Amino acid sequence: MTPYVAVCGAGEASATLARDAEAVGRGLAEGGAILVCGGLGGVMEAACRGARSAGGTTIGLLPGSDRRAGNEWLTVSLPTGMGELRNGLIVRACDALVALGGGPGTLSEIALALKIGRPVVGLGTWSLAREGEAAVELLDRVEDPAAAVTRALALATGSV
Amino acid sequence: MTPYVAVCGAGEASATLARDAEAVGRGLAEGGAILVCGGLGGVMEAACRGARSAGGTTIGLLPGSDRRAGNEWLTVSLPTGMGELRNGLIVRACDALVALGGGPGTLSEIALALKIGRPVVGLGTWSLAREGEAAVELLDRVEDPAAAVTRALALATGSV
Amino acid sequence: MTPYVAVCGAGEASATLARDAEAVGRGLAEGGAILVCGGLGGVMEAACRGARSAGGTTIGLLPGSDRRAGNEWLTVSLPTGMGELRNGLIVRACDALVALGGGPGTLSEIALALKIGRPVVGLGTWSLAREGEAAVELLDRVEDPAAAVTRALALATGSV
Amino acid sequence: MTPYVAVCGAGEASATLARDAEAVGRGLAEGGAILVCGGLGGVMEAACRGARSAGGTTIGLLPGSDRRAGNEWLTVSLPTGMGELRNGLIVRACDALVALGGGPGTLSEIALALKIGRPVVGLGTWSLAREGEAAVELLDRVEDPAAAVTRALALATGSV
Repeated sequence: MTPYVAVCGAGEASATLARDAEAVGRGLAEGGAILVCGGLGGVMEAACRGARSAGGTTIGLLPGSDRRAGNEWLTVSLPTGMGELRNGLIVRACDALVALGGGPGTLSEIALALKIGRPVVGLGTWSLAREGEAAVELLDRVEDPAAAVTRALALATGSV
Repeated sequence: MTPYVAVCGAGEASATLARDAEAVGRGLAEGGAILVCGGLGGVMEAACRGARSAGGTTIGLLPGSDRRAGNEWLTVSLPTGMGELRNGLIVRACDALVALGGGPGTLSEIALALKIGRPVVGLGTWSLAREGEAAVELLDRVEDPAAAVTRALALATGSV
Repeated sequence: MTPYVAVCGAGEASATLARDAEAVGRGLAEGGAILVCGGLGGVMEAACRGARSAGGTTIGLLPGSDRRAGNEWLTVSLPTGMGELRNGLIVRACDALVALGGGPGTLSEIALALKIGRPVVGLGTWSLAREGEAAVELLDRVEDPAAAVTRALALATGSV
Repeated sequence: MTPYVAVCGAGEASATLARDAEAVGRGLAEGGAILVCGGLGGVMEAACRGARSAGGTTIGLLPGSDRRAGNEWLTVSLPTGMGELRNGLIVRACDALVALGGGPGTLSEIALALKIGRPVVGLGTWSLAREGEAAVELLDRVEDPAAAVTRALALATGSV
């Protein structure tokens, strides 16, 4: 079955982060995954551009009600009108997710994924601890885009 | 811009209704539309089969949390976990919708579309009146699948 | 157990409709029900005013994100930010619903209630038929507010 | 205006955490707030029990579709049928939130609150950092239930 992998990250991205996101998107598409994301700019746009450059399919679940707010690299642009609640839809719609960098939206996607048991691969993203305790490793943390792709595809297809 | 057209109808369909739904799906795909639906059987499945036979793209927004509940003709199968609230997502995600036959779910999609101003084409579907009044024509009612396709494409692209 | 009854109707109401809605709200509160509604004006506001005049509790599930959009007779005002999708939340949150008059939002609530099996009492609301067929009675249709209250309370408590 | 404060925490709670949650709930009710929560056991139940002991109003937004899953201290029990997406509704429905202890659901509520600008008071909850960086203080961290109450009421009423 086709794996669905979400790429989560902020709507604005540094050049380095965008380059990483593009590499992740490309790798996921080369691996046969459908890319799901929030459909906007920054990390989402870069990942979509990468996926499309490899002939992949990209799905954007937009927070607003206007399809045209989606980035230009979306194969399918779906306005949800649910605001940030659409983060939960992204999580539900994927088999695994890659979190890149970190704003609060990305953190909410990580948390919702942990809540419903979707595996999360993290690249340069949040580190989580409980007060007064050492950080707990709730994510599958990787060091570069290639590792993120390999790991996400393995997790999404249940081959690990 | 690519038009998005939703095909709404029950998860079970008579042979006649399925044949109509398949023709609508095929026609929409030939017209370049992306087909959005609830992703299950009956009218939804027949419409997807038609669209795929013409090389089209089909999106299913499933009520449950398991992607595998989607019919086999979906290009993209998105579990929402929102139950019948996903009917509102289908309406938001399309530029126009075709209602075929009628269960309560279809009626809810017609009503939500009217509420937010998405045009509705009806084929053999609900007739609506207020108590003690004559039926009001809130839908764009057509007599056959070909007319449904022509009308829905025109409405979705704003060319009427 | 306390019955929860939704009162559904448009955000604007004629004097007659508002008087009926107020009577329904008052009767439901006198019968011990918690009133659930969309929290805005018109039918919703009149029903809340009636319920509060009898010491009842009124819950508004608002479409927007600003609590202050709720009418002044709400005991509890809950912004959902889900737009018209909150209609589905109203339906889920009640044990039975009373539909008064009719806009498309009210129609969507009737339809979603039928879809998930919540009983609907209708007073001066939509009449539903399938094309070329006689109207089907999907609602429990009543002639006046007193009958709406009696019927809704009976349905909400499962005593019919 | 009446402040609405959400109390977020896991469905299971240690004796210490439950005692803290109960104290927070009681204090919020004494301060005139309506308590919003996820409606289940553990932290949620303890907070509701505390609020009710002070004559407060407690609202539960349940993940499932059955009102009876709500804890016995709810004034209003609202099934949403949205699963963990209801966490976003809790956040929207409050003016400020108190996070107690920490499971992934609580983390998602913290993150969604940060995303839409609802102030968060944290007591014994998540500590957040970005990889390789020092922890960032995104929460208003307090040391005991009394401080949580004081701070949450001040934030919810905009008096800070």
